[in-house]
Amino acid sequence: MTEDCDWLQVPPATLDAAARQAAAERQAQLTKPPGSLGQLEAIAERLAGMQGQEKPSLENVHIAVFAGDHGVVAEGISRFPQAVTAQMVANFATGGAAISVLARYLGASIEVINLGTVAEPPAVSGVQQLNLGPGTANLAREPAMTPAQLERALNAGRQCAERARRSGAQVFVGGEMGIGNTTSAAALACSLLDLAPADLAGPGTGLDANGVRHKAEVIEQALQTHAAVRGDALGSLRCLGGFEIAGLAGAYIAAAQIGLPVLVDGFISTSAALVAERLCPGTADWFFYAHTSAEPGHQRLLAALEAEPLLDLGMRLGEGSGAATAVPLLRLACELHSGMATFAEAGVSGEAS
Amino acid sequence: MTEDCDWLQVPPATLDAAARQAAAERQAQLTKPPGSLGQLEAIAERLAGMQGQEKPSLENVHIAVFAGDHGVVAEGISRFPQAVTAQMVANFATGGAAISVLARYLGASIEVINLGTVAEPPAVSGVQQLNLGPGTANLAREPAMTPAQLERALNAGRQCAERARRSGAQVFVGGEMGIGNTTSAAALACSLLDLAPADLAGPGTGLDANGVRHKAEVIEQALQTHAAVRGDALGSLRCLGGFEIAGLAGAYIAAAQIGLPVLVDGFISTSAALVAERLCPGTADWFFYAHTSAEPGHQRLLAALEAEPLLDLGMRLGEGSGAATAVPLLRLACELHSGMATFAEAGVSGEAS
Repeated sequence: MTEDCDWLQVPPATLDAAARQAAAERQAQLTKPPGSLGQLEAIAERLAGMQGQEKPSLENVHIAVFAGDHGVVAEGISRFPQAVTAQMVANFATGGAAISVLARYLGASIEVINLGTVAEPPAVSGVQQLNLGPGTANLAREPAMTPAQLERALNAGRQCAERARRSGAQVFVGGEMGIGNTTSAAALACSLLDLAPADLAGPGTGLDANGVRHKAEVIEQALQTHAAVRGDALGSLRCLGGFEIAGLAGAYIAAAQIGLPVLVDGFISTSAALVAERLCPGTADWFFYAHTSAEPGHQRLLAALEAEPLLDLGMRLGEGSGAATAVPLLRLACELHSGMATFAEAGVSGEAS
Repeated sequence: MTEDCDWLQVPPATLDAAARQAAAERQAQLTKPPGSLGQLEAIAERLAGMQGQEKPSLENVHIAVFAGDHGVVAEGISRFPQAVTAQMVANFATGGAAISVLARYLGASIEVINLGTVAEPPAVSGVQQLNLGPGTANLAREPAMTPAQLERALNAGRQCAERARRSGAQVFVGGEMGIGNTTSAAALACSLLDLAPADLAGPGTGLDANGVRHKAEVIEQALQTHAAVRGDALGSLRCLGGFEIAGLAGAYIAAAQIGLPVLVDGFISTSAALVAERLCPGTADWFFYAHTSAEPGHQRLLAALEAEPLLDLGMRLGEGSGAATAVPLLRLACELHSGMATFAEAGVSGEAS
């Protein structure tokens, strides 16, 4: 690793404890029994601390979808052909994918960052083509990325978070696309959490039981190949991760460093979140966890991060779709916090002491 | 009961199986692994069957908040004074309550129906004052409602659902306010589900453990007083319910009869939903269950209705606030269903066969 990744050591921004406390005091005055809005109260208070103001707001949402292919697909761990990654990149840009629809509904800005696919990049506008390579190498047999590829992917994420901040974003939603990336994410998390492949291997886009067993074997092989980096965040990311996972990790770290709240999506994104927190401790203070994915291993990752996800809708699409689906909850939390009357304003009696 | 409640026997509207099937077939063509949007797919398909069109929509939301006081407050089962019911009615109308803020954010129409409070009805515009009485009688010792009061409350709900439909509503959100109404709802549900008071008595607006124990004793006394109606939906509603619970039950039944989807809120609303389904079987086919309340008894009610709630955010405010919070999920489900490209449209390869 060259000095170009020294920025990973910069500590995350500090939360504004006074603003959070002011928000908590306001919550106690609003016309409702204390605590009766549950996690919506906690969201408003955390956002107050993140934004440094008693009444946070969340109009401007920036969505970034990172795409990359995975050499490990050669091991037969996905039901979809690898060409789908590049095809979906085009679908993101032309507006037909789930995350595209969600971005429109939310009025969010969206950018699509293709870090490197096997198929020729699609000829559509609106995609940043970074060309780190034609997908990663087969992580079951060799390191997924070269040091230079890892560095470029992390920096692509960093630059993305900085663009989001410059554009006025109040929350960063990261998404990903990459046929085969549940295998990569599971291997990466196994290495960092010292779990067995069977704990984290799941159906992904739709493997049957035999497919999941084979996937676990491939992950086991990968862990043996890269036993030397077990537990090491940067080494595991390079050997077992993917371009898009590294991009997300870089974006999460940079977002926390510049004080931009993050909505973490599902299994792949949470593996990136775990790497980010290991590389730059305190990054997770800037995370909201959007949902619990139907991908079974996700719960282990969430538990490792002591996450309390907002939604549990059986989603398992990726792209940032679960995170985008949680955006209205954050907005409602802000609206309630700012818009409700206090007991004094409304002339409503408080509880008996 | 007079003939004026004969309408309760009218069967619910029939769902459009062909439209639902067409929606399911569309879902299978959208650019995502099958099932990967989880409950959002199921929402779109159910709404298609309810609205009778392959691509449902959910722009127009009608929120109705029913308020009423409860004589059982004389038994000391709430930490808030009874005057709060009328004060909150005013807060709904003037826009300071949680449900008011949510209605604004959602662009929903909202009506406030005060069925009868102890305190003088507040002098604010925007409240329908129905004056069924100064709250219900003390259900621990006598029937909560007279037959005439029950009938008027049910009919108020029916008329509300019909107004919603006439105004173009595509979903009906019912809410409630009534100091003491978790006691009423718990007693009602105990009678219908043959449960013990300790199974359903919870902290409500904030009772401590002693308060909850006392509340369970009051419910036990009520169940003994009204043992004759145990298991009978209409009798239990009259003896153990409340004006606002009857209003909600009437609204839910009428909504199902006219084919208007319903978003059910928390503990109180679900007790009304249970009554509605018992009075008019099939009503629940028109229900979406918005959330699992933090009120512990709610899970028992949801299980009795085989409900799969959308959210679990620790909310326990009532007013329809949990149901309103789930509206964006229904809207997102419609947007994704209508707005995503199919595999053919996007030129994306499907999974290997």
